[in-house]
Formats: sequence, structure tokens, C-alpha cells
Amino acid sequence: MRSLLLLICGFISITAQAQLQGFSKASAAAQLALEKKFDEQLKSSNVDEYLKQMSSRPHHLGSPGSKAVAEYIAGKFKSWGYQTEIETFYVLFPTPKTRLLEMIGPKKFTASLKEPALKEDATSGQANEQLPVYNAWSADGDVTGDLVFVNYGVPADYEQLEKLGIDVKGKIVIAKYGRSWRGIKPKVAQEHGALGCIIYSDPKDDGYFQGDVYPKGPFRNEYGAQRGSVEDMPIYPGDPLTPNIGATKDAQRLDRKDAANLLKIPVIPISYADAKPLLESLEGPVAPEGWRGALPFTYHIGPGKTKMHLKLDFDWKIVPCYDVIAKLTGSEFPDQWVMRGNHHDAWVNGAGDPLSGQSAMMEEARAIGELAKTGWRPKRTIVYGAWDGEEPSLLGSTEWVEYHADELKQKVVLYINSDGNERGFVDVEGSQGLENFFNEISGDITDPQTGVSVRERFVSKKITDASSAKEKKEWMEKKMVTMGALGAGSDYSPFIQHLGIPSLNIGYGGEGDGGEYHSIYDSYDMYSRFKDPGFVYGVVQAKTTGRVTLRMADAELLPFDFRIVTKKISGYAKELMETTNEMRDATVTENKVLIEKYYSLAADPTKTFIAPKPKEEVPYLNFSSLQNALTALEKHSNQLAQILDNPSLSAEQKNKINTQLYKAEQNLLLSNGLPRRSWYKHSIYAPGFYTGYGVKTLPGIREAIEQRNWKEAQDMIEQTAATITQFSNYLGEIK
Amino acid sequence: MRSLLLLICGFISITAQAQLQGFSKASAAAQLALEKKFDEQLKSSNVDEYLKQMSSRPHHLGSPGSKAVAEYIAGKFKSWGYQTEIETFYVLFPTPKTRLLEMIGPKKFTASLKEPALKEDATSGQANEQLPVYNAWSADGDVTGDLVFVNYGVPADYEQLEKLGIDVKGKIVIAKYGRSWRGIKPKVAQEHGALGCIIYSDPKDDGYFQGDVYPKGPFRNEYGAQRGSVEDMPIYPGDPLTPNIGATKDAQRLDRKDAANLLKIPVIPISYADAKPLLESLEGPVAPEGWRGALPFTYHIGPGKTKMHLKLDFDWKIVPCYDVIAKLTGSEFPDQWVMRGNHHDAWVNGAGDPLSGQSAMMEEARAIGELAKTGWRPKRTIVYGAWDGEEPSLLGSTEWVEYHADELKQKVVLYINSDGNERGFVDVEGSQGLENFFNEISGDITDPQTGVSVRERFVSKKITDASSAKEKKEWMEKKMVTMGALGAGSDYSPFIQHLGIPSLNIGYGGEGDGGEYHSIYDSYDMYSRFKDPGFVYGVVQAKTTGRVTLRMADAELLPFDFRIVTKKISGYAKELMETTNEMRDATVTENKVLIEKYYSLAADPTKTFIAPKPKEEVPYLNFSSLQNALTALEKHSNQLAQILDNPSLSAEQKNKINTQLYKAEQNLLLSNGLPRRSWYKHSIYAPGFYTGYGVKTLPGIREAIEQRNWKEAQDMIEQTAATITQFSNYLGEIK
Repeated sequence: MRSLLLLICGFISITAQAQLQGFSKASAAAQLALEKKFDEQLKSSNVDEYLKQMSSRPHHLGSPGSKAVAEYIAGKFKSWGYQTEIETFYVLFPTPKTRLLEMIGPKKFTASLKEPALKEDATSGQANEQLPVYNAWSADGDVTGDLVFVNYGVPADYEQLEKLGIDVKGKIVIAKYGRSWRGIKPKVAQEHGALGCIIYSDPKDDGYFQGDVYPKGPFRNEYGAQRGSVEDMPIYPGDPLTPNIGATKDAQRLDRKDAANLLKIPVIPISYADAKPLLESLEGPVAPEGWRGALPFTYHIGPGKTKMHLKLDFDWKIVPCYDVIAKLTGSEFPDQWVMRGNHHDAWVNGAGDPLSGQSAMMEEARAIGELAKTGWRPKRTIVYGAWDGEEPSLLGSTEWVEYHADELKQKVVLYINSDGNERGFVDVEGSQGLENFFNEISGDITDPQTGVSVRERFVSKKITDASSAKEKKEWMEKKMVTMGALGAGSDYSPFIQHLGIPSLNIGYGGEGDGGEYHSIYDSYDMYSRFKDPGFVYGVVQAKTTGRVTLRMADAELLPFDFRIVTKKISGYAKELMETTNEMRDATVTENKVLIEKYYSLAADPTKTFIAPKPKEEVPYLNFSSLQNALTALEKHSNQLAQILDNPSLSAEQKNKINTQLYKAEQNLLLSNGLPRRSWYKHSIYAPGFYTGYGVKTLPGIREAIEQRNWKEAQDMIEQTAATITQFSNYLGEIK
Repeated sequence: MRSLLLLICGFISITAQAQLQGFSKASAAAQLALEKKFDEQLKSSNVDEYLKQMSSRPHHLGSPGSKAVAEYIAGKFKSWGYQTEIETFYVLFPTPKTRLLEMIGPKKFTASLKEPALKEDATSGQANEQLPVYNAWSADGDVTGDLVFVNYGVPADYEQLEKLGIDVKGKIVIAKYGRSWRGIKPKVAQEHGALGCIIYSDPKDDGYFQGDVYPKGPFRNEYGAQRGSVEDMPIYPGDPLTPNIGATKDAQRLDRKDAANLLKIPVIPISYADAKPLLESLEGPVAPEGWRGALPFTYHIGPGKTKMHLKLDFDWKIVPCYDVIAKLTGSEFPDQWVMRGNHHDAWVNGAGDPLSGQSAMMEEARAIGELAKTGWRPKRTIVYGAWDGEEPSLLGSTEWVEYHADELKQKVVLYINSDGNERGFVDVEGSQGLENFFNEISGDITDPQTGVSVRERFVSKKITDASSAKEKKEWMEKKMVTMGALGAGSDYSPFIQHLGIPSLNIGYGGEGDGGEYHSIYDSYDMYSRFKDPGFVYGVVQAKTTGRVTLRMADAELLPFDFRIVTKKISGYAKELMETTNEMRDATVTENKVLIEKYYSLAADPTKTFIAPKPKEEVPYLNFSSLQNALTALEKHSNQLAQILDNPSLSAEQKNKINTQLYKAEQNLLLSNGLPRRSWYKHSIYAPGFYTGYGVKTLPGIREAIEQRNWKEAQDMIEQTAATITQFSNYLGEIK
């Protein structure tokens, strides 16, 4: 049972008992002593220094600043004793040549598309090197059309528009940031025939409604705008021209027009100062309550007399992408890699995103380097990756992973990702067999603000936020940091979703309020004032990811517990079966409501209302293969746990088992990948096709059900059951 | 079973079967023929004419306009053949002499307290006769203090303030309109030691967030402000100086300082144009998300440098209050009264509130008068009451009811109230024994916009608004207009809550959007443009209330079905038992969370957070007397239903039973009334002590539980059980 009992008994410090998952009693004491020395090395002043230095000028992909940052990081790693190289890929990266957004009727207004410099923010005036406000991977275009407000621009919003009799075909849409990854908005707009797409930050979600705006407070001011990628990453991330292969200098490239993850329409992000006159001028129906933001007027949907002209032109250049790779070779298992990663490129100065995470990772690496200088060596090789080009589309990590795929599938024991980091609560997502392992660690790290463990603080937050007494009680009993499933949005994506390599994403947050995201105000001044004053949580992050790295590097038996994975997958499967049943009931009811015309009778006859058509009824799906596969998996994961619990396992046996354990998750890959996006191979986790960052568990089945594609749902049940059976059989053979 | 089966079978027109609740088959046909003639009389052009005439100048209590309106109504009733008189009471009514609200720091700003005239609104410029923007029954006062924003100013908001370490003692509070009856806001502020209270209309709840503002659209513009009473009506309504007795010229009056329903602090309502500079200037913590409105800045709570000066002075005059009482004497039972009522006084011109209801009632009365001219007479006496002084505190109705209490308890079979009326859906609340009766009527009236019955349209709306498939299914099966319980807020209050007289409140609404409430813009121009163009729903309302009146006046057997009452009370009791159990569980959990300090650990240490103290645990209450009383009531109400269903009842027997039926509800009165507010005697329905308009069912028990007063809760269980037993025994003896 390992530490499960301990966790149930409450926040007992595990340190006192010198018992660690993956370690014998004797070696646990040594490991804890090592970690104590590691902790003593960590200095917030160093985190401050790295962050200040690297954020001192804009450093987006392809810029001189980015090269300088890569070289700075490489230099540091070298000086700390790592075998370091900069590995360069050559990737497509569009930057704007023309950006014009103007209202041409009923009044004339030209959007400023500009964030002004502030005297309170030292780097905000570096206009020469700043990437202007734009969405990378927008198409070139010169379009004119009537404006329609589409709320968050997700599929449900278009269903609502249909009921109101509004079609966006041949029009330009304006959508709010939020509720989905930004790339979904132009994708869905394009599917509905829109000519162009504007995305703006509404002050309700990201501005004065949330709190005082910059520079008085941390929230987005009226001119702040959110840059960001709109590549269709749910199809595949990375270089659009080189799916599945590394974008080396001489790689075979697609023609740009054939890249399946590129948009056909132009799209631009704007501030609420720029959005205000457009929205205020709209006519047509008043927007439904949930659509309205915090601008001081009545939100209308349009269309009406408001006509927009959008002209965008980009420089579609191939640019170098500098990944810094640093290694500390393992003493016993040099070909088993524990890998850490964080990107280094930013949209502008990127103090928070990504440098807060990068700086913490560097301080962690320095401290491990210091340990190595004392003669200690990790059993397994520790590899650091500082990725370039994450912002446009996870370029540095994806190209590197695609290029080294075969080696990585053999060698990587765990990939531990981080990104922006700030004051607050620990958050972890990823390969859920490590949930107990992570709880052991998070129970052993002290939160600097409260003096309790970061695990206890996490649980306190869950108890506080729980909406019912029942839920509070459950959290007080559970007392665990729950490990969420991984969606998309940072560099773990190619590791876990393309290759099935166990991955975690770890960071702190929740108390570093702000609206600096992807703006020129994501600066050292802003970060040090609002996000992590004193860089205290930079050190906590280094302690956390450092422990994960060190324990995985030194473990005698890798601490994977597949019983947890079994439980989580069974939970997802149960949820899907329930969802299907609920959809069946709801469809019958909804169709009856429609046939009896109740919606039309309730509607205000003075307003347009077009009742939707009844939907095809939901058939009964055959889930038995999935259920049987899960039953077998439960048996095999329990058997494996017994084998791992055997105290008389020899070192040799453990070493053999380890090589099997860390490759287990690869058995969950679908050989052909997911429908219509074969790059995504994991059968349990994927980003949503129509949500973006948000994870969809059992994605092949779930999305087919959501799209009411019953044939595909049944087919994906069988395919997923087959991968689970393969995984289960694999576990059954470990010994 | 009477018509229950019919209702279950769907929207079958009852007309075709010439079967009506309370009528034999033979007389049902005659009744339906009568109602057909009645319908033919109703003319929207008359509703238009009455409304236009009466809203042509301001007509608040005590004004020349009010006297003119009373005389106009009396003249009309006389001309339609009613025995009509104006009955005058003499009531206290404060009107403003001084109104000054100014911000004296950090900047100077004086509130305009003024709604400007609009060229699109013909009566908006009648400044000479308009009551200015104020809250009636505010105390006189001249206070200066720091400003604190208290959200909606209800008790839960002060709990939140306590957690934030903010005390309003010695300060001036500003609260938003909404979430409670307005009088609760200064009452709770006063209980917490505030010096004064400002109430404003936030554009989120009542302004541009909702839709286009007047005169472009119907919603409240930036200068619109909501007048209204802040008398503590949950203690007692009516003249503060004459509780329980009629305010006749020579009635014995309390000294004003001894009136328990008068405030001690000054309070004033303002527009959002006036509120904006005050709120924008506030400092202190950012308001919690649910507190923020739609003004374009960050909402702070204060206190800080924002200092207010509020000076109010009133003319506390005794004024005449003109109730118009019109009778059409019954041919068989002149001493059984079916009574209709609607107030005629307004805050200003009051086209919607109350004249839309008043005009519909007048057209109904005219049509009945026309029927009478053909020789027909109702069996029972029909009485119309057009009340004065409803706006300040239900003055006209309360004083009249208190004065005539003994007679009314003997004679009134049913009081049918109405107030503002507009385009939309039927709404009915009141004595729930009439639920089936009302469904028969609402199934027989055609909605002019859709051509289906108003019952079917009501059900369509419920289905549309239901949030789950389960709920939609339930509504499709039920297909009934559910009758809600009556709280407070219009002239039924003294009838049902003080005397236990069966009462209904009936009106249409939900499609007459607007923000004209209690402003100078509640005008003929506004009403006819936005609330009920063509006065179509004025006629529908007259058809509905006219049918209720005619059928109750002519019924052979009064259509009360106390099985429904039993079911509803049992539901409320069950709810209370469940609530108590949930509170018990929640208190245990909450106390554990507090003792373990989870809230404090989760709180952001850079912000003030004061954890509340653990609460006394919830004891088990003894509900057995209530449960036993309800068991007996079920038995007796079933027995009574059998007696009433007997087809061989003689006319004489029916007449005898009728006199017992309509007085039954009086048995539900508590002899001493509710704790701390003995004017309220009904044991099943009362307005909430801390919510105002909103009904509290089983109020004695429920409010004691909510206030965690366990001793009183147990005491009120016994008292309520005793009234239910008395009611049950009474029903058991009807024959």
C-alpha cells in the first residue's frame, strides 16, 4: 500500500519517518539529506537577477533578444557544470508588415493597435524591439464587412446566433477573449463563413471589472491587448510546414497552403479602448445577458450600419529557433533521462511568461550543479531544456521532440514542465500514476506565507472554494493535491500527447492577479510589484520541481502507481456512459419541447426567434469492450502493485522493472492517432478540438459523442479499449 | 376529484364541456354565456382612455392630482351603476423640504437628485407637481461620515464586511437597489450603526446593462432614480401612528417617536449619474465579484478619503387618503362580498404603476356594469376598492381593512388584487386552495400574441426557462399555472396577512421591459410605447380578473380545494425539516473548517481576512406536533373534498357549506401574531423580516431557524401546529 495510508491519516510529515516512495529506508535518509543541501543553495536574489536580466529587452522567437537570452541561459548552465548545447531549428514565423483595422461606417474610427509606454514601467518604451499587437498565424487579408458581436466565439454562441436569425457569412466578427483558447474563435468564425475576426479583452473578464488597472493595480488597462497564437494547435502544434518531423535546415517542408493548422481568414487582437467605439456603434438585438461585458453601454449583436475594414499582411519568414539543452550525466543509468523544461521566448519582455518559470528552473539547476560539485551525481541523467518559440506554437519543444522521438521514447523517464509562476497555490497536472508521489513531496515543502505545507495550503483553498458542506467534508478527508489531466498550452504537449512519455506540469499561482498576459506590461517592474514580490515563490517552485527531479533521478524503484491511473480512467469512462445516457434523455425531452413548439410559444413575438430543428436521437452505445478492458486493467495494476510492494526485490530486479515502468504509458497511444488529427496519439488525454487548452479525457470517444457522431464514437470505444488492453497486458508482464 | 383529471390530461378546453368548478352543468352553460357577453364588452380603447386621463398629471397621496383621480374613478363607477363612495382616512405622510447629498472629500460633488424632462415624454416636465426623488419615511437628519459600499445592504453583505474587517458604525453607507425590498437596506444599516444610507440604481441591475435606456429604449437612464417607501413594513404597514386601527379623523394616534416601523437614520435614493463619482472615488479593498456593477471602473468598498454629507428634512403632515369603494349588490347573498382592488396613487404619473392595473380593473367593472344593465345581477355582492396611499405604505387598503375588520371577516369571500400590468405571462399568487379554479380560468383565456391559452403560454415559458431536462419534463406533465404564496408589496397584505381573508394577486408581465419604476418616466408615453402597446394585455387582464370575480360571485359551491393547501403546507414543512438537518450538518462542517483554520490558511495574507467565529451547533427540533397536525389536516381535507364532490348536495346545503368555506383560512391565524410583529397573524405566509417583499412560508418557524433562535423555533412549531389543528378541525366540521 505504500504511502496511501499516510495520506489518509492527515498531514503527517513524512520526513520524520525517513521513508520515501521509491527509496529503501537507508537510502531515503541520504536522499532527504541531499534535498536539505539542495534547499540551502536556493536564493531568491538569483531568481531576481536571472529574471531581471532576461526581461531587460523584448525576446520573441527570431529576435536578437531571443538569441541573447538563449546564449545567456547556455552560458549559465555551462558555468554550473552542465554539458550544454544550443540546438537550432528553422521554423516558419509570421510577423506583421501591415496592420489596419478601421470602422468605416456609420462613423470613422481607426484602431490604435498600440500599447503606450508608462513611466512606471521601465521596459514598456522599447518600441523598436517590441512585436506589435497581433495574432501569429492569422492569414494575410484585406476584407470589408458588417460587424457582428459573437460573444466568446465558441460553437454554442453560433447556435444562439442562429436562434436570433443572425448569420456571420460574409461579415467580420468581434469576439471576447476567454472561455476557449483564442485560436478556436477565428477557426469557428471561419467555419461559419466570416471574412475576418477581431478578438478583444473585455474589461469584465480582463480589465477594470476585475480590479485596479496597470499601473495603479495589476489588471489590464484600456490599451492593453493580448498577443497570441491562433495556429490550429488542436490539429498539430509546432512548425506548420513540418508536422511529425524536426524542422531542421534541410527538412522536407510542406507548401504553406497545404498546412492543415493554418487559418484562411485574417484575425487581430485589440484592447478595450479600441473595441469600445465598435461595440458601442452596433445595432440589432440586445446581446443575451451572459454575453454582456463591462463597457458602459448596452451590448448589441449587430449587424447594422457598423462596417469594418481589416487589412493584415505578414512577413512569412523562416527563423532560427534556439533550444538550450543541458545535461548532467547519470552515474548509474546514463540512458535514463529525467527531463525538465521551460520555454525562454516571450511575446515581448515576458517577465512572468515565461521567465518566472525559467528563472526558477535555472536556480534549481544551479543548486543541483552545486551538489554535483561536491562529488554527488544523480543515478539517472538530468536534462534541462530551455525552449524557444513556445509562444507561436510550442515550436522549440515540438521540433526537438519530433526530431529526437526514437531516443526520447527509449530514454525519458519523466518530463517535468513549468511555465509562468507566481504567488499562490501549488498546481500539478499530468501522468496520474505519480499523484501519490507528488503528494509526498508537496506535503514536505513549506508555504512561505503561512508556514504550513503547500499541500495543506492547496487543500485549504479547495475547502474554502467548495460550494457545499459535503464537498468541504470530502476535501477535509482527502487532504491531497489532486493531479489534473493535461490539456495543451505549454511544452509538455509533444512529450505526452505525441510520444506517450510520462509528463508533469508544475507551478504556483492564484495570488498573482494581473492583466499583463502577452502584453508589453509583462515586465520586471510589473512582476516584482504584483506577481511574486521578493521572488519567494520562485524559490518554492525550485524546491518543488527540484525534489521531483532529484527523487526521480535517484529512485531505486520508480514511484509509478498505476492503480491511480486505473481509477481515473474508470472515472472518465463512467462519466462518458452517464453523459451518453443524459444526452439520450435530454434529446428526447428537447425534441418533444420543439415538436410541441413550447420555445416558440414562450418567445417574445416582437423579437426574432428561430427554433432549432429536433436532433437525431441518441442510440445505445456498446461500452462493453471498454468495461472489460478496465476490469483487466484493474486486476493487472493491483497485481503489479503487489510485486512493487515486495520488500525482498533485489536491486537488479528493481532496475529491470524500472525500464518497464517508465515506458508503460506509451502503450496507451493510438497507432493512428485521433480522428482528423493523427499527431495526437494519446488515447486518454488531448486538448479539445473545439476548446483548445482545456483537456478532453478519453478524447476520441468523448468528442465523437459531443459531436453526435455515433459511428465514430463506437469505433473509438473499440480503439481505446484496445490501447487500454495493450497497456493492461504490458503491466501484467512487468516483473 | 373535480377537474384535476382534466388538468392532467392537458390543455383541453373546458368550455366545450360546459362544466365549471363550483357550477352544476346547467348553470355552467349560463355562466359561460355570461362571460362571453362580458368579453364582448371589453375595449382596449377604454383602457387607453382611462390610463391617459389619470396619468396626465402627478397624483401622489395628498396631492390635488390624487384627489382628482379618486373623483374621476368614483364618477366612472357611479356612471356604470355602482353604489359608490369615497371613504377618507387621515394619514401621516412625509414629503421633503430639504434634500442635500454632497461629497465633501476628496473632491467636492453635489448630487443633482433630479430627473430631467425629455422631449419624447410629454408629462416628464411637470416639475411643479412632481414629488422629488426621495424615500418616504426616511428620518430627518444632518449627518457627515466616511462612505462605505455595502453591496445590496442585506445581512449577508455585512457578514462579508466583517470578514474584511470593515465596520460601518459612524459611517454613511451606499447600497444598490435590488435583492431585497428597499426598506431592508436602511434598516440593516441602522442596526449596524450607520449614520445614513444612500440607495442607488446600478446600471447592471437597472440601466444600460439590461438594454437601451430611455428614451431610446425602455431601461433606466443615468438620471432615473427610484422613489419608494422605507417604512419598516415587515413590522406593520399602513399609518405608523395607527397600527391595528383605522386612521379616521379622530383615531387615537401614537407619538411619531413611538412608531415601531419608522427609521432613525436618513436615507435617500439616487441615480447612477449621481452615484458614479462617489463610487469611483472610493478606496479600500476591491469589492467581491458579486458586488460589482456595470459602472466603468473598479468597485471598491471604502472607507477611505471619501466623505459624504447628507441633510434631509421632511414635512411630516397628516394628509387625506381617498379610497374609492364601489358596490354592486348581490341578488342572493348580498352579505357575501367578492372584492376587487387596485391602488390609484402613484409616485409621480404612474402610468404603469398603478394605472395599468387600475384601468384594466375599471374596464372590467364597466363591462360588469353593462351586464347588470341587461337585468343580470351577481349572486354575491361585488365590491371594488381603488386604494389611495399604497406607495408610501399600503395606507388606503390597510386603514380601510383595519377600520372594517369585523365586517370584512364576516363578508369577504375572496379579495382579488391587481397592480401594474404589462405584456407577457400570467402570474398569480395567493390562497392556494384556488389553484385548480384559477387553472380552469387561465386555460380558457386566449393569449393575444400566440393564440394559445394564457395557461399554455405560462407553461411554455416555464419549460423554456427550466434548466434541466428533468424540470422541462415535469412542466410538460404538470401543464399548470402554479400559484405562488403571497409575500408583501401590494394591497392584499392587510386582507390575507392581518385578517386571513382568502386573497389572490393577478397580473401579466415579463415582456414589458423597463426601468421606469417609481420615476417621472413611468408615463403614458413610455407605457404605451414599451409596456403594453395597444393596451392588449389590459383587456386580457380584465378578462382574467373579471372571470375570477364573476365565477366567485355566482358559484353555487365555492371552488376552494383545501387538499392543495394541505399539500403545499406539507411541502413547506418538509423543506423546513430538511433545511434544519442541512444546517446541522453544515454547522458541524463549517465549525471544523474554522477550528482547523482552513479559511485563514487559504486567504491571501496580503489582504485583511477575519475568520468568523464558530456557531452554536443546531439541536434536533421536535417537529412531531406539526407532522401530526398535517396528518390530521390531510384526512380532513380529503373528507371535505368527498363531501363537496357529492352530486346530490342540495342548494341549501351548498349555501351553508359556502359560508363555512370562505372563512376557513381565518383559522390559520396566530392569535398573538408573529414574534416582534403581532400585526402579521397568518401562520403560513408573511413577508420576510429581513427580505421585505419576498414571502416566507411558515414564517414563525422559518425565521426563527434562519436566525438560529432554537427556543423560538420550537415555540413557533407548537403555535403553528395549533393553528393547523384548528384549521383542520374546522374543515372536519364543514358539512
